[in-house]
Amino acid sequence: MIVRASQDAAAGSAPAAIVGIDWGTTRRRVVALDAQAAPLREFDDDAGMLSAAGRFAAVLDATLERIGPLAPGARVLLSGMVGSAQGWHPVPYVDSGTPLESLARCLFAVPDAPRGLDCRIVPGCRWRGDAGEVDVMRGEETQLLGAVALGRRDGGFVLPGTHSKWVALRDGRIEHFSTYLSGELFALLSQHGTLAPLVREPRDDEAAFAAGVQASARAALSHVLFECRARVVAGDMPTASAREYLSGVLIGAEWHDALRRLGRPSAPVCVIGTPELAALHVRAGRQLGVPVELLDAREAQLAAWAALARGLWMSEPPRSE
Amino acid sequence: MIVRASQDAAAGSAPAAIVGIDWGTTRRRVVALDAQAAPLREFDDDAGMLSAAGRFAAVLDATLERIGPLAPGARVLLSGMVGSAQGWHPVPYVDSGTPLESLARCLFAVPDAPRGLDCRIVPGCRWRGDAGEVDVMRGEETQLLGAVALGRRDGGFVLPGTHSKWVALRDGRIEHFSTYLSGELFALLSQHGTLAPLVREPRDDEAAFAAGVQASARAALSHVLFECRARVVAGDMPTASAREYLSGVLIGAEWHDALRRLGRPSAPVCVIGTPELAALHVRAGRQLGVPVELLDAREAQLAAWAALARGLWMSEPPRSE
Repeated sequence: MIVRASQDAAAGSAPAAIVGIDWGTTRRRVVALDAQAAPLREFDDDAGMLSAAGRFAAVLDATLERIGPLAPGARVLLSGMVGSAQGWHPVPYVDSGTPLESLARCLFAVPDAPRGLDCRIVPGCRWRGDAGEVDVMRGEETQLLGAVALGRRDGGFVLPGTHSKWVALRDGRIEHFSTYLSGELFALLSQHGTLAPLVREPRDDEAAFAAGVQASARAALSHVLFECRARVVAGDMPTASAREYLSGVLIGAEWHDALRRLGRPSAPVCVIGTPELAALHVRAGRQLGVPVELLDAREAQLAAWAALARGLWMSEPPRSE
Repeated sequence: MIVRASQDAAAGSAPAAIVGIDWGTTRRRVVALDAQAAPLREFDDDAGMLSAAGRFAAVLDATLERIGPLAPGARVLLSGMVGSAQGWHPVPYVDSGTPLESLARCLFAVPDAPRGLDCRIVPGCRWRGDAGEVDVMRGEETQLLGAVALGRRDGGFVLPGTHSKWVALRDGRIEHFSTYLSGELFALLSQHGTLAPLVREPRDDEAAFAAGVQASARAALSHVLFECRARVVAGDMPTASAREYLSGVLIGAEWHDALRRLGRPSAPVCVIGTPELAALHVRAGRQLGVPVELLDAREAQLAAWAALARGLWMSEPPRSE
């Protein structure tokens, strides 16, 4: 659990006007903000959608208890998998062309929120291509709204993670996005199967990562993954390098695919993520000659809650203030 | 267990001159042959390399007990992962350019075989490319020798399975080969993670398989795998089609990669495998306009044991006959 102190000494007990929860499948990030959308209190935990086991109203009530006092008319904003078919309410996707700044007008009002609170879920986003391709996101659209609110309205974005997203924004709208199962494949291959015994030891190894990025350009991922094993078995790579090589292969596959499909970007690619994952993308970008800039995921999320609250206040002033 | 009756009524108790065991990681195929290399008795079981738990001599002794009487000077031939570092003896790889018909002169003599038997392990095969690529096989080289012995000395071959092999032969030598983790990925994704709940029900669905083959041409495998989920979630594909779609994606990725790297073949691609997996490759080949012909894996294996026995007899006559 992370509890960050606010810069304001009195913030510890200041009533919150907004509570924002990025409520994913396995993780949750909760933040209380004041009426100017400045953060008061926050925590992260692993009480994701799956652990709520259908008792969302009760879980939210306990969460609000924990985050501290609410101002009259406080609003709760939720994003992420909480709005999926496995979540609290299945909120229909908006089309990817919807301006992100208009998401505040597309929120789903939760009918069974605790304490009669005004609680809204941000809809996920769906993209469809001309050849039957389809992709979906829930949660990342909110972080992208934060990027837009911070002035990044155009260009290429990466949101790395279990299901890594590559997004092209144009004037504050999603033009295209692609999801990669990279983090999930890394976890599966680390825990089960042929590669698992090779990739148990984490070790920083830039050369092995670079070799993985390079190899992933040459062939199908299912081949390059086997090559990770072949290199060790043939004596061409030490076992201790296999984990970073695998990481390079999976991240490299994203980069090569994205550069092929989206073209080489004219401006830096913006990574919205944790410092650890962002650092790997900076490495891959440097290797491929593409500049990368970072946007802290927390900063983007805070900017998104502020933008959503502002939009909501403008279109629907709070019920009791 | 499969026990096949020989065409010869007296074969049931005829002493075997050769016992061949294709001894893989989890499976084993055992066959007793007469001096003319005609099959006498055979069985398959799941007593693979891993289940031997290091007691290979004792396990082989029990296997020979089960397969029935041996002629004086009988020889035992082993292929597959039994010759790996995790197997009985780590047999060094031969280079991929070695003529397959000369494998009989590269056999590893097992020093601790039971009953003082003449027991040999077929070496695996290693390929190295100019850009640091490397690939390895153990077991498939023996089936390919069988193909050569049956007159298929040239062209493209697929040996589908957990680690699917694509091989280019030229005049009875391996020119190039690539391994794909397809079967292993299918098993991992069916049992764990995001896709698992979608792909539990086997169902024949040619259209979904074809859509998977088509989708795998468009993007990195890690993206197309996620798209399997996105199609279901977005309502573009019924859940019941997801398993065949996934199968099409993984097999399609092999085909697109192999056709890109090996070029479009001028002759039919030869699939050496079980009828079930071969049927899927026939479908993929038809969809991509490439003719496919089948070679039964058992026939290839029998031809390989015959060729190895013949080669061994010529270079080293048995010790006691």
